[in-house]
Amino acid sequence: MSNIIGNYVGGSTVKLNGGALQDVFNPSTGEVSGQVQLSTSEDLDEVVEVAKGAVSEWSRTPVGMRAQVMFRFKRLLEENADRIASTISSEHGKTHDDALGEVTRGLEAVDFACGIPHLMKGTFSEQVARSIDMYSIPQALGVVAGITPFNFPAMVPMWMFPNAIACGNTFILKPSERDPSVSLIIADLFKQAGLPDGVFNVIQGDKVVVDAILDHPDIAAVSFVGSTPVAKYIYSRGASSGKRVQALGGAKNHMVIMPDANMDQVVDALMGAGYGSAGERCMAVAVPVPVGKQVADNLMDRMVPLVEELPVGPPDDSKAAMGPIITRQSLERITSLLQSGVDQGAALLVDGRDLTVPGFEKGFFIGGSLFDQVKPEMDIYKEEIFGPVLSTVRADDYEDAINLIHGNPHGNGVAIFTRDGDAARDFASRIEVGMVGINVPIPVPVGYHSFGGWKQSLFGTHHIYGPETIHFYTRLKAITSRWPAGIKSGAQYNFPTMN
Amino acid sequence: MSNIIGNYVGGSTVKLNGGALQDVFNPSTGEVSGQVQLSTSEDLDEVVEVAKGAVSEWSRTPVGMRAQVMFRFKRLLEENADRIASTISSEHGKTHDDALGEVTRGLEAVDFACGIPHLMKGTFSEQVARSIDMYSIPQALGVVAGITPFNFPAMVPMWMFPNAIACGNTFILKPSERDPSVSLIIADLFKQAGLPDGVFNVIQGDKVVVDAILDHPDIAAVSFVGSTPVAKYIYSRGASSGKRVQALGGAKNHMVIMPDANMDQVVDALMGAGYGSAGERCMAVAVPVPVGKQVADNLMDRMVPLVEELPVGPPDDSKAAMGPIITRQSLERITSLLQSGVDQGAALLVDGRDLTVPGFEKGFFIGGSLFDQVKPEMDIYKEEIFGPVLSTVRADDYEDAINLIHGNPHGNGVAIFTRDGDAARDFASRIEVGMVGINVPIPVPVGYHSFGGWKQSLFGTHHIYGPETIHFYTRLKAITSRWPAGIKSGAQYNFPTMN
Amino acid sequence: MSNIIGNYVGGSTVKLNGGALQDVFNPSTGEVSGQVQLSTSEDLDEVVEVAKGAVSEWSRTPVGMRAQVMFRFKRLLEENADRIASTISSEHGKTHDDALGEVTRGLEAVDFACGIPHLMKGTFSEQVARSIDMYSIPQALGVVAGITPFNFPAMVPMWMFPNAIACGNTFILKPSERDPSVSLIIADLFKQAGLPDGVFNVIQGDKVVVDAILDHPDIAAVSFVGSTPVAKYIYSRGASSGKRVQALGGAKNHMVIMPDANMDQVVDALMGAGYGSAGERCMAVAVPVPVGKQVADNLMDRMVPLVEELPVGPPDDSKAAMGPIITRQSLERITSLLQSGVDQGAALLVDGRDLTVPGFEKGFFIGGSLFDQVKPEMDIYKEEIFGPVLSTVRADDYEDAINLIHGNPHGNGVAIFTRDGDAARDFASRIEVGMVGINVPIPVPVGYHSFGGWKQSLFGTHHIYGPETIHFYTRLKAITSRWPAGIKSGAQYNFPTMN
Amino acid sequence: MSNIIGNYVGGSTVKLNGGALQDVFNPSTGEVSGQVQLSTSEDLDEVVEVAKGAVSEWSRTPVGMRAQVMFRFKRLLEENADRIASTISSEHGKTHDDALGEVTRGLEAVDFACGIPHLMKGTFSEQVARSIDMYSIPQALGVVAGITPFNFPAMVPMWMFPNAIACGNTFILKPSERDPSVSLIIADLFKQAGLPDGVFNVIQGDKVVVDAILDHPDIAAVSFVGSTPVAKYIYSRGASSGKRVQALGGAKNHMVIMPDANMDQVVDALMGAGYGSAGERCMAVAVPVPVGKQVADNLMDRMVPLVEELPVGPPDDSKAAMGPIITRQSLERITSLLQSGVDQGAALLVDGRDLTVPGFEKGFFIGGSLFDQVKPEMDIYKEEIFGPVLSTVRADDYEDAINLIHGNPHGNGVAIFTRDGDAARDFASRIEVGMVGINVPIPVPVGYHSFGGWKQSLFGTHHIYGPETIHFYTRLKAITSRWPAGIKSGAQYNFPTMN
Repeated sequence: MSNIIGNYVGGSTVKLNGGALQDVFNPSTGEVSGQVQLSTSEDLDEVVEVAKGAVSEWSRTPVGMRAQVMFRFKRLLEENADRIASTISSEHGKTHDDALGEVTRGLEAVDFACGIPHLMKGTFSEQVARSIDMYSIPQALGVVAGITPFNFPAMVPMWMFPNAIACGNTFILKPSERDPSVSLIIADLFKQAGLPDGVFNVIQGDKVVVDAILDHPDIAAVSFVGSTPVAKYIYSRGASSGKRVQALGGAKNHMVIMPDANMDQVVDALMGAGYGSAGERCMAVAVPVPVGKQVADNLMDRMVPLVEELPVGPPDDSKAAMGPIITRQSLERITSLLQSGVDQGAALLVDGRDLTVPGFEKGFFIGGSLFDQVKPEMDIYKEEIFGPVLSTVRADDYEDAINLIHGNPHGNGVAIFTRDGDAARDFASRIEVGMVGINVPIPVPVGYHSFGGWKQSLFGTHHIYGPETIHFYTRLKAITSRWPAGIKSGAQYNFPTMN
Repeated sequence: MSNIIGNYVGGSTVKLNGGALQDVFNPSTGEVSGQVQLSTSEDLDEVVEVAKGAVSEWSRTPVGMRAQVMFRFKRLLEENADRIASTISSEHGKTHDDALGEVTRGLEAVDFACGIPHLMKGTFSEQVARSIDMYSIPQALGVVAGITPFNFPAMVPMWMFPNAIACGNTFILKPSERDPSVSLIIADLFKQAGLPDGVFNVIQGDKVVVDAILDHPDIAAVSFVGSTPVAKYIYSRGASSGKRVQALGGAKNHMVIMPDANMDQVVDALMGAGYGSAGERCMAVAVPVPVGKQVADNLMDRMVPLVEELPVGPPDDSKAAMGPIITRQSLERITSLLQSGVDQGAALLVDGRDLTVPGFEKGFFIGGSLFDQVKPEMDIYKEEIFGPVLSTVRADDYEDAINLIHGNPHGNGVAIFTRDGDAARDFASRIEVGMVGINVPIPVPVGYHSFGGWKQSLFGTHHIYGPETIHFYTRLKAITSRWPAGIKSGAQYNFPTMN
Repeated sequence: MSNIIGNYVGGSTVKLNGGALQDVFNPSTGEVSGQVQLSTSEDLDEVVEVAKGAVSEWSRTPVGMRAQVMFRFKRLLEENADRIASTISSEHGKTHDDALGEVTRGLEAVDFACGIPHLMKGTFSEQVARSIDMYSIPQALGVVAGITPFNFPAMVPMWMFPNAIACGNTFILKPSERDPSVSLIIADLFKQAGLPDGVFNVIQGDKVVVDAILDHPDIAAVSFVGSTPVAKYIYSRGASSGKRVQALGGAKNHMVIMPDANMDQVVDALMGAGYGSAGERCMAVAVPVPVGKQVADNLMDRMVPLVEELPVGPPDDSKAAMGPIITRQSLERITSLLQSGVDQGAALLVDGRDLTVPGFEKGFFIGGSLFDQVKPEMDIYKEEIFGPVLSTVRADDYEDAINLIHGNPHGNGVAIFTRDGDAARDFASRIEVGMVGINVPIPVPVGYHSFGGWKQSLFGTHHIYGPETIHFYTRLKAITSRWPAGIKSGAQYNFPTMN
Repeated sequence: MSNIIGNYVGGSTVKLNGGALQDVFNPSTGEVSGQVQLSTSEDLDEVVEVAKGAVSEWSRTPVGMRAQVMFRFKRLLEENADRIASTISSEHGKTHDDALGEVTRGLEAVDFACGIPHLMKGTFSEQVARSIDMYSIPQALGVVAGITPFNFPAMVPMWMFPNAIACGNTFILKPSERDPSVSLIIADLFKQAGLPDGVFNVIQGDKVVVDAILDHPDIAAVSFVGSTPVAKYIYSRGASSGKRVQALGGAKNHMVIMPDANMDQVVDALMGAGYGSAGERCMAVAVPVPVGKQVADNLMDRMVPLVEELPVGPPDDSKAAMGPIITRQSLERITSLLQSGVDQGAALLVDGRDLTVPGFEKGFFIGGSLFDQVKPEMDIYKEEIFGPVLSTVRADDYEDAINLIHGNPHGNGVAIFTRDGDAARDFASRIEVGMVGINVPIPVPVGYHSFGGWKQSLFGTHHIYGPETIHFYTRLKAITSRWPAGIKSGAQYNFPTMN
C-alpha cells in the first residue's frame, strides 16, 4: 500500500517521522484505499512552529491583498470541483452529485471571505471627549485550528479556514482520519492561489493530536464540528488552556407537519432530508412529527412505498439516491439501533437491513428505514442514529409538538411545514433551536449568515461561518487617542523641546 | 473612417438610426481614430425600454447568483486589463501604467460588489410589540443611469455600475464622447460573465442624451462625475423630474506642507499628484501650501529642477511620466490660464508651454508648469485648470492654511504633510473637505470605503462606490407583520371559516 | 387678540418686526384662538445667522454630551405630554388620546437619538496598504431645516430634529401655520434640557418662508412632509440651490382583504385606520380592496352600521372617536369630493355630510363616509381626500389587487389581511410601496426603523427618522493616513530636522 | 451588629436561612460596618429558580418596553448617585469624587442599553434562492450571572447587567463580599424603574457560591472580573458545564514615555493613573517606561516631590487624592512587595510605608511609593501589586519598550506618550494589548465601545460592555423560509384541502 496520506506543513506535504498509520477505506467496496498518518504531539509542535512563524507577515499583509488570495482560491476550487467531489466520494461514499453539492456549499464561505476588507472594519468615534478620539479594530488572533468530522470532509473545513485565514490568522486543519485526502487537495489549491507557505497547514491524526491541539499554548482558538460528547470535551479542555473554542455537536432534528401543510412538499422534503447522504448529516431530519392522526396516517401511507423503493448504490451509480455508510462499525451501530426500536415497541414500517448492492457486496450499505409510533423514551429517539432512518413521533397538537422538541437535549435544526403565517411565526420565534426551516427541511444558512445550534448542539458563543466567524477569529483592540498641542499652534515651527 | 462607436443595448452593439457622428481623437497624434454616435432622445427611449424590460427578472434573481456574475466579471476584467488599458490610452492619452492603474482601482468596486449578499441585508426586529415583528429590506430601484467623464473612462463607470447592477438594478452608461470605446469592451466582458441582456447598456452621445436621461420618467437614479457647473445642473434637473441624483463636481485640491514634514516624501508626492495623468484628475493636487517661508523656499528649490525635467510622451513611451492633454481645446485653455497667471503676477518658475514631443508634433502635449507666489484672487487659483500645473500659495502659519482651504468653494480632496499627531488630527477633524490625506497626496478611498467631496465638489447625499453606493442604489421597504391566531391554536385542524 | 405666536430664535421667543399675522383657529369651535407671525425672508436670514453661529460649538460638543441633552429632553417631553397633547388638540382638533399617541410616537425618535454615540460611529480599516490606514467618519452638515404639516404638529417635527440635532447640526423648524403653538413648547423644553441657545429654532410662516429656506445658501439640508405636489416642488427647488432634500408627499393607502382574512380584525382595522384622526393621516387607509364578491359583500354589510354610528366630537369628549377637520376650506373640499363620488357613480353607503355636533355648531365637523363600487378613474380614488372617507374598490382576485395598487402613483403605505404565509410574502416582496402591513393597517415603522414611501410619496434618497436620518443629517469624511518614520526608529531622540 | 447584608431575590431583600456571616469593614477606620451573608449552593438554587421563572415573560416583553425600564433606571441612578457613591466609599475607601466617577462611568453602560432596540436587530436576506428568504435574529440566553470584584462595586456590575437585562435575560449578581451593600441599592432602584421581580437578583457570598454558579445547569452565561488566576479558573470551570464565559483577569499596565512627550502631561498622567484609587484599578498604570536616560532622569526628578506630597485620607477628606487599601491583608501584601523590591535591588525613591492619617490610625492606609531601576525579573514587576506603587523600568529605545511589554503575560491596558504620529500608529497597531492609550494613561473605552484585555487579562471571546456585550448575551437563531403556493394563486378562495 503506497498511498500514505501525510501532513501538509509550510507549503508542502510531508511524511513526518514515526507516526503510526491507520487504514482508510472505500466504503462502497469495503476495501482499504490508503493509510493516514497518525501524528504525534511532537508532529503538532512542528506544525505550530511553522504556523506561528507565518503569522506576523500574513496578519500584516494588507487586507485587500489577503482578499485577492481568496478570489483566486475560489476560482481554483470551482475548476477542481469535480476532482474534489470524486475524492470525497471515494473515501466517504456519498453520491457524486451530493459531493459536488458539498463543495458548492463550502464555496459560499470562500465567497464570503472575499469580502473581508469590508467585514474587518473597525469602528471610529470622533470626539468622545474634547479632543479625544476612540476606535476599536479587530486584529487576527495568531494560530488557530480546526478539527473536522468525516461527513463533510470539504465543506466543514471550509466553514472554518477561509474566514480564519482571511482575517489574518494562520490555520491548522485536523481532518477526519476516515476521509483525509481532500484536505491535501485544498492545501495544494491554496498554494496555487498564492497563499504564503505556513498559513494553511494540515495535520493528520486521531485523539492524540486533538488533545495536543487543545493543550498547545500557542494555538489561540479551536473550531470543532462532531458529536455532542466530543464537542463538550473539546470545549472544556480547550477552555482549560485558555483558548477560544466553538464546538458544534450532534443533533436530532424534528420536522413538524401541520394539517395544512402541502403534503407533496412534505414527502419530498422528508425523503431528501431523511435519506440524503445516508442520513449522515447533522442537519438531516431524524424525527418527522405529524400533528394529528389524519396527517400521520396520510404521511405514513405516502412514505412507505417511497422508502421501500429508495435507490442505494455506489457514488458513480447515477440512479442512486444514497451511498454506503462510512464504516462497518457505524453500519453495525445503525443496525443495532434499528433492532432496539423494534424491541422497544416502535413500528418499523420499512426495514432497510440486509440490503445487498450487486457488485458491492462488501460495501457498507444499508437501505432506508422508516419507523412510526416512536416514543421519546426509546433509544432510536434518544440517540443520534446518523443513518438513513426516520423515527416518526406523532403529536396530538401543535403545543404537543413544541413540547417534544423542547424536551430534546439537542437544538441544532428544526422545520415546520404549514401554510399558516401565525403557526410559522410562533414556531420560529419560540422554538429553542438554532436553525429553523419554514417549509424548508434542511435550513442550513447561506454562507453570508451563520450556522449553529443551541443547547447540546453547540458549545461556545459563536455560530460558524458568516459574520459570526469574523468575530470569533479576531480580537478587538480599543485605542483612545489625544494629542498635546504641537507644531500647529502658531508661529513656532521648531519642534518644542522637552519641558 | 469605418470605426463607428455605437450603443450597446440588450446584449449587443447597435448602430442606431440617424444619430449624428462626432470625431474621436488620439491625443498623442492629434489624429481622428473613430467616430462616436451622438444618440437622440428617441434612441434613449429605446434603451430605457430594454433596460426596463430586464428589471423584473434581474432584481428577483437571487442575490447570490448576482454575485457570481460579478466574480466572473472580475476575472474577465483582470484577464483583459492590458487590452482595456491600451484602449484607454489610445483615446485618452495617459501612460499605459497609469491606464492599468485606473483599471486596478476600478476593479476594487467590482470586488466590493462581489460581497453584495452581505451588503444587501436588511434588518429584522422581533417583537416590536406583542406578536408584531418589523423588518426593513433594501430593494433595487429599477433602471439607473451613469454619466461619466473623459478622464477615467474605465474607473469612473466602475464606481457606478458594478454595485448598481449587483443591487438588482439595470444600468445605462453614458460615457464621455471623448473616449467612448472602453465602454463597449466592458459591456462585452459583462455578457461573457453571464450578465443577462439588457442589464448593462451603453448609450453614446452628448448633452442631448444627458438631458434625455435627466428627464426620463423611467430612470430612477442618476450618478454623475464631471465639472462643478455641470454637476450642479445635473443635480437640479434630475431632481426636477423626481430622481435620485449624486453629482460629483470639480476640485481644487490643496496640499499643506508643515515645517516638520519629511521633504523627500513631500516632493515625491507633489510630483506624482500634480503631474500624473497630466493633472487631469479630480484628485490631483493643484495647490501646494507650504507653511512658513523656510519651507516654501526649500520646496521651490527642490521642485524646479524636477518639473523642468519631467518626461512627457505618448502612452507607449515607457519613460514618459505623463502624456498629452485630452483635446486641443483643453490644451489651449490651459495655455491661456498659464498666461493669466503670469499676467496677474504669479511667479511662473517652470513654464511647460511650447513643449514638442519628437514624432508627435501634432499631439496635444504640454510640459509641467510650476507657479509660486499665487494669490487666491488669481484665475489660476480660482479655476480648476485640469492640467499639469501646480499653483503654490504660501501660508504664514497653520491657521492661515486652514483659512485658505475653507475659503475655496471646492471640498474634494486635501492633504497635510506632517509628523505631528496633533496637527494631523486637528486638520483631519476640522477641515471642510470630504477626502483627507495625512502624508498621502491623493487620498482616494479604497473600494470598500466611499469617495466624495464636500461643498461644490458633490451635489446629493451620497458619496460614490463602497457602502454609500448600496444605499444610493436601493430603496428601503419596511414591513410590519402580525398574524391572527390560526391553525396552531389547538385541536381544530380545519381552516377557520370566514367569521 | 393677544395670543401672538412668534418665532423662537437663539433660546427665546421673539416677536419679529413687521411680519403679517394670520389667524389660527380652534376647529372644534370655529373660533380664532391666536395669530401666527408670517415671517419674511429677512426674518429667516436672522434665524439662519443664529443657527449658523451655534454650529461650531455644538457639532464639536462630545457626542456623549449631546446624547445627555436628548435623555433630559425625553424626560421633559414625558412629563409635559399632557400639556402638549392639549395644545395639539386645541389647534388641530384631534382627540386627546390621539394627540397623546402622537407625542408617544414622536418620542420614539428621541429615544433613538439618545443612542447617537453608537449610531455616529465611523469605520476604520487598518493597513489598507503597507503602513496606511483609512477611516470614514460622519460629521454634522451645519444648519438644517424642517418644514412640517398640520396633521402631526408634534410627531412629524420629532421625526426630524432630535436626530438632526443629536448628529451635531443646528435646526430651524418651520411648523404649519395651522397649529404652530406646540413648536414653542418643544423649544422651551429643549432649553430646559440644556440645549445651547441657537441649536433649535422655530420660524413661523407660510410659503414665503418656505421659499426662503429652500433658497438660503447656508442651509445644508431640508426635510419636508406634506402633499405630493408641494413635496415635488420642495425637492426640485431645494436641489436647485444644491441642498440635500428629503420630501415626503401624499398617499392613497390600500388595504387588501383576502378571503381567508380574520374579518373581525379587518373591520376593526378599517374603522381605526380609515376614520381615526378624521382620516387626516398620510398613513390612513383610504381604499379597502376586498378580494372577491363574497368578501366585499360581507365587509360592506359589517362596516355600514359601524360607520353610521361613528362618534364624532371635540377633543375633550371622551366618547368621540374623531374630531373636526382642520379648516373650513378642507371641510368644504371633502364635501365636494364626496359629491363627486356620487356624481361619478360610486355607491355612497354612508354619507357623513351635514353632521352637527351639539354645542359645536360652528366647528368644522363631518361624519364618517363609506363608498363602495369605486373605480380607479373617479376623483375620490385619484385624489388624496384627507378626510374620514373610505373608498372601496373591489378586486376580482389577488393579481387584480396588486395591479390596482401598482397603477396608483403613490406608494406610501399598504396592507394585506390574510392568514396565508405565501400571500403575505409575495405581497410584501413584490408590492411597490414603501411601508407594508401584514394584518397591520397602519404600518408606521417603530422609531428605530425608518419611515418612507415610494414613487410619488417620497422625493429624495432617504426615509425619515431611524437609521436613515443619521445618514441624511451627516456627511462622510474619508481619511487616509500614513506616517514618515520618525522618533521611534532607534537611538536618535532629537526630532529629525527638515531634510 | 444589626446590619446584615442579604440577598435580593424576586423583587425583595431576603435574609436566607443558615448561611454564615462575614464581616464587612470600613477601611478608613478599620471598623466592622456590617455583615454579609455567605450563601450556600441551596440558596443559589432558589435564586436560579426565581430568575428562571422570570425569563419567559421578560424575554418576550417588547424590546422597546425593556428599553423604557433602562431609561427610568438611568434617571434613578443619576438622582441617587451621591448616595451610591457614599456607600461605595464607606466600604471601599475611595474618595467621594472617585466613587462618583465610578457611578458616572457605570452609567455609560446603562445609556448604551437604552439603545437596545437598535442594537438587537437581526439581519434579513430576501430571496436567497427563488422564493426563499433567510433571517438571523438574536434572542436572549435565559439566566445569566455576573461575579464582580471589590474595586468597582458599582461600575463593574454595570458593565454586565444593564445590557444583559436589556437583551431579555434575567440576571444574578454575585458582588464582592468586601463591599456588597451597593448591589442592594441598585436592585431597589431597578424595581422602582419598573423592572419585573425576578429579573435582577443578588446573591451574596464567597467561593462556595461562585462554584455553585459555575456548575449550575440553568445558568447560561457567566461574566467575571477579577484576578488572572481566578479568571482562568472561572473560564475553565464554567466551560466544563457548557456555559458561555467571559472572564477578565489582572493587569500590569505599562506607560511608555517617548523623548518627545509633553512632560507636563506625562507627570500628571502618571500621578493620576498610578495613585488614583490607591492603585486598586485594573487599568492603573503600574510600570512607567521612560525611553532613554534623559527622559528617565527628568521624569524621576519631577515625580519624587509629587509622590512625597501625595495627600492621603478618608473619603470625606476633600483634599485627599486617595484613600485607604481595601483590607488589612491587602495592605500587608503591598508592604511586603515593597520590601521585596528593595531587597531585590530596585531603587525605592519614595517609600509610602508607615504613613499615619491622624484620626484614622486604624485605617488601612499607605502612602504613594515610587520605584526606579526596576527589572523584569523582580517580584514588584511580575506581581500585580494593586496598590499605590509605580515601578519604573527604563528602556533603551522604542523597540526595547515594545519587547518589555510583549514579554509580560498580561495585556490589559497600555499607553504611549509622544507627539509623533508614526510612533503612535506603530505602537497602537503592533502592541499586543487590548486597550491602548495615545497620550491617555487610562484608556478605558467609552460605554459604546467595549472593554477588554488580551493574553492573560481576558479569557473568552468577548470584551465587556458595549457592542460586544450584546453578542455575548444573545444567541442567534437563523430562519429559512419558503411558502407553498396558496390562496393568492387565482380564483380558488377556499383554502386548499390536504393533498
